[in-house]
Amino acid sequence: MAKATQASLKAKLSHFDAKGEATMVDVGAKAATRRTATATAFVDLSAAVLKALPANPKGNPLEVARFAGIQAAKRTSELIPMCHPLALTHVDVQAEIAKGGVKITATAATTGPTGVEMEALTAAAVAALTVYDMTKALDKGIVIRTVQLESKTGGKSGDYTRSAKGGHAGAT
Amino acid sequence: MAKATQASLKAKLSHFDAKGEATMVDVGAKAATRRTATATAFVDLSAAVLKALPANPKGNPLEVARFAGIQAAKRTSELIPMCHPLALTHVDVQAEIAKGGVKITATAATTGPTGVEMEALTAAAVAALTVYDMTKALDKGIVIRTVQLESKTGGKSGDYTRSAKGGHAGAT
Amino acid sequence: MAKATQASLKAKLSHFDAKGEATMVDVGAKAATRRTATATAFVDLSAAVLKALPANPKGNPLEVARFAGIQAAKRTSELIPMCHPLALTHVDVQAEIAKGGVKITATAATTGPTGVEMEALTAAAVAALTVYDMTKALDKGIVIRTVQLESKTGGKSGDYTRSAKGGHAGAT
Amino acid sequence: MAKATQASLKAKLSHFDAKGEATMVDVGAKAATRRTATATAFVDLSAAVLKALPANPKGNPLEVARFAGIQAAKRTSELIPMCHPLALTHVDVQAEIAKGGVKITATAATTGPTGVEMEALTAAAVAALTVYDMTKALDKGIVIRTVQLESKTGGKSGDYTRSAKGGHAGAT
Amino acid sequence: MAKATQASLKAKLSHFDAKGEATMVDVGAKAATRRTATATAFVDLSAAVLKALPANPKGNPLEVARFAGIQAAKRTSELIPMCHPLALTHVDVQAEIAKGGVKITATAATTGPTGVEMEALTAAAVAALTVYDMTKALDKGIVIRTVQLESKTGGKSGDYTRSAKGGHAGAT
Amino acid sequence: MAKATQASLKAKLSHFDAKGEATMVDVGAKAATRRTATATAFVDLSAAVLKALPANPKGNPLEVARFAGIQAAKRTSELIPMCHPLALTHVDVQAEIAKGGVKITATAATTGPTGVEMEALTAAAVAALTVYDMTKALDKGIVIRTVQLESKTGGKSGDYTRSAKGGHAGAT
Repeated sequence: MAKATQASLKAKLSHFDAKGEATMVDVGAKAATRRTATATAFVDLSAAVLKALPANPKGNPLEVARFAGIQAAKRTSELIPMCHPLALTHVDVQAEIAKGGVKITATAATTGPTGVEMEALTAAAVAALTVYDMTKALDKGIVIRTVQLESKTGGKSGDYTRSAKGGHAGAT
Repeated sequence: MAKATQASLKAKLSHFDAKGEATMVDVGAKAATRRTATATAFVDLSAAVLKALPANPKGNPLEVARFAGIQAAKRTSELIPMCHPLALTHVDVQAEIAKGGVKITATAATTGPTGVEMEALTAAAVAALTVYDMTKALDKGIVIRTVQLESKTGGKSGDYTRSAKGGHAGAT
Repeated sequence: MAKATQASLKAKLSHFDAKGEATMVDVGAKAATRRTATATAFVDLSAAVLKALPANPKGNPLEVARFAGIQAAKRTSELIPMCHPLALTHVDVQAEIAKGGVKITATAATTGPTGVEMEALTAAAVAALTVYDMTKALDKGIVIRTVQLESKTGGKSGDYTRSAKGGHAGAT
Repeated sequence: MAKATQASLKAKLSHFDAKGEATMVDVGAKAATRRTATATAFVDLSAAVLKALPANPKGNPLEVARFAGIQAAKRTSELIPMCHPLALTHVDVQAEIAKGGVKITATAATTGPTGVEMEALTAAAVAALTVYDMTKALDKGIVIRTVQLESKTGGKSGDYTRSAKGGHAGAT
Repeated sequence: MAKATQASLKAKLSHFDAKGEATMVDVGAKAATRRTATATAFVDLSAAVLKALPANPKGNPLEVARFAGIQAAKRTSELIPMCHPLALTHVDVQAEIAKGGVKITATAATTGPTGVEMEALTAAAVAALTVYDMTKALDKGIVIRTVQLESKTGGKSGDYTRSAKGGHAGAT
Repeated sequence: MAKATQASLKAKLSHFDAKGEATMVDVGAKAATRRTATATAFVDLSAAVLKALPANPKGNPLEVARFAGIQAAKRTSELIPMCHPLALTHVDVQAEIAKGGVKITATAATTGPTGVEMEALTAAAVAALTVYDMTKALDKGIVIRTVQLESKTGGKSGDYTRSAKGGHAGAT
């Protein structure tokens, strides 16, 4: 992004119209193509909290988080004001214990005129909030960090993959 | 939390029943008292993106984020599976440009039998997602970081204030 | 309202804080008392459209409108950004054929710290929109007019009854 | 519409089946074409109330109304019983101070088998309700009037533009 | 199903991935074709309760049930975690007094990459729950039984019609 | 109920007003007391389907059903037209493999002016629908039967416990 001029940046601010008002982008003229996006979130958990998580097959808090994320992806346009309602063809959320916490990976896909970045990010964020909810009795100081887009495919703006250096150490 | 034993930690995992199953905590016997919570989120934005944000009074993306956060707080129990529906008496979301990005501060309050930490966190997270949505045309690599509880008051577990060292540098 | 000064008017704009930002009013310190509100809406219909409405017991479009209004009242806080979620104790919507159209009367009640004017108005407006939806195949020019509060009881601001002269002729 | 016979009117009542029951129209055989609709609403405000509205860039109640309208458009099928869920490609809501009050103009668009008149009308009505909510502390007698379709394009029934005489004076 | 081996059954469990995790099926590669489904539910009512149902044209509890079912069909993907959001082209719910109770018949249709069985079943179940709600003051012991798919058309798995012997006697 | 006369039955039909119109009961004058309800649902599954259910800890379809039921209980008033919004203090859903299928047991509780029977029944029904969704690839003919109230406590109408003979054999 380094070489983008301010003028071209402003021109790209598609969520604002000529008057500078926040608007929903009109995607009526865009082609309905396959689009995917993957986002991650990371919930920092101390070793003590990680050990205290139930090992019981039915009580896995990561499962609750996965379902919450999948459900949230479907409601993205209700939550994010300028998002379009979308017929998602797939949502997947994985939650796994990693070094230092829980890593959430959310993927969304559609065949439509607009991308699914916000759906993937919303799924990851709500799954992370759910992990916090399930563990906050242990430690209210638990931090959700690094909710970020990892990659996207499809659409006029092309594919995107986060470069390695941009990530949060714990989330890698 | 350092001195808590594993046994006492497990005992505190109120979202899991004796079988280890994830459950909603029964708050029927808790007193309805005033409870508040404040959470923050931080969206990292490069100097170029910060400059490109419209200065127009009507097009302020931070206003869109504020409203999205307030609306999301009211829907927390729909998003977070084990949260109780609550009659929130107040929600406030502030979004302000800070060094290195946008800082979201969300506050929620109720008079009820359970706390509003998740409502404040959900408001902060959705406001941050909305900032991302409004700026992603400029830079898809924008990262939301440090969604965290800052403080809470009321309830059996007492008041909580995050200690200074726990914060993300940019969010302070 | 004639004698209110501008200063006192601004002081009453409770939805705006000291910075002039739109906010949700904090009702945490208000007493939970019984509050009711009644609102009306009027849908202008030509004589030809009124005659074409099905007389069949099961096909009454006014019944669809009534149910839609009741359901909408319960979702007011999702629709109106600065409204508080409320435990409504009653919602009633009546839809009746009047001279020149259909008159909707919606009543809401709660025992809580804030009023139910918006719930009654939302019920009336959505019921009126539903009447339009059920009849628009006959006449797209049908107009909803005079969505207005008729009365309220309870709360610090006291009771209110619309004065006779304020009404739309057709809605009286 | 003057020359339409009662028989042809009844035949047009597509929301009712042969038994006279209210139904959702089956649009499965309709072509997915581009459709748009524009609706307006007008909120009568006295000069005193108009002056009291905050001029602060961040506190503009018209911005709250705009966002509420956009969000409501996306939820039309949840509110209006016989409406189909739609993948809206665009929603725009403008709110501007006019002579005697605030005029809301809402536009919706989709590429689909059914029109978006209800989406535009719902957006306009909810934006108007939000203006009422933001100003009701000043004057509970504020009236929303003239929620009406201004135009539509696309679909089998063809384009529609409201004739000049049909409008409410204040809304023109 | 009698001859299906366990291995082939497991292979068909499309809601579970290779790790055995519950997932949403990826329908991105499926063709968008017309799909319909019909489901029924039956609410057992004693003769005394059936007689007590209001005969008044406007008070028909079966109408409330019909609308509730139609509205619920549109929200299926919010209720059933692994369901995809769908642009339903039609929903119809019939509720009729039958021998021994009320029979609900719900039909849903779409043109899309996935079937509408869950939409028809959800509509039928919620309509039946509504009948219970309208009559429970008379008899809390009322039972909803036989929520079941009657038929479906379209999609890779082909058409399905329930064989006569599978039904609940009262529901036939 | 055997001795209730028709007149007294009609008097008990609290969801209908004097005109016979379906209405929401006004609970404004009722005391806020603790109320609970338990409902069950039973999903018939063949031995072959039961065996094919994944044993994997993370893929348990009964867990998906449990979460779906809990989430649905919180949205009961959105689904059932005449239900009041309620601040539920507890929801619990258990799903267990029983002889011939899966048995769902849902419990809801509140401290409020109205009962939670519909919340428990809605949770049970949606959990059962979710079991169907997770297994329908194996056998579309799977039947949900016997969604029924098992017991309730609190409220003016007193406690209720289903008598043993009323149940579906498989569900006992």
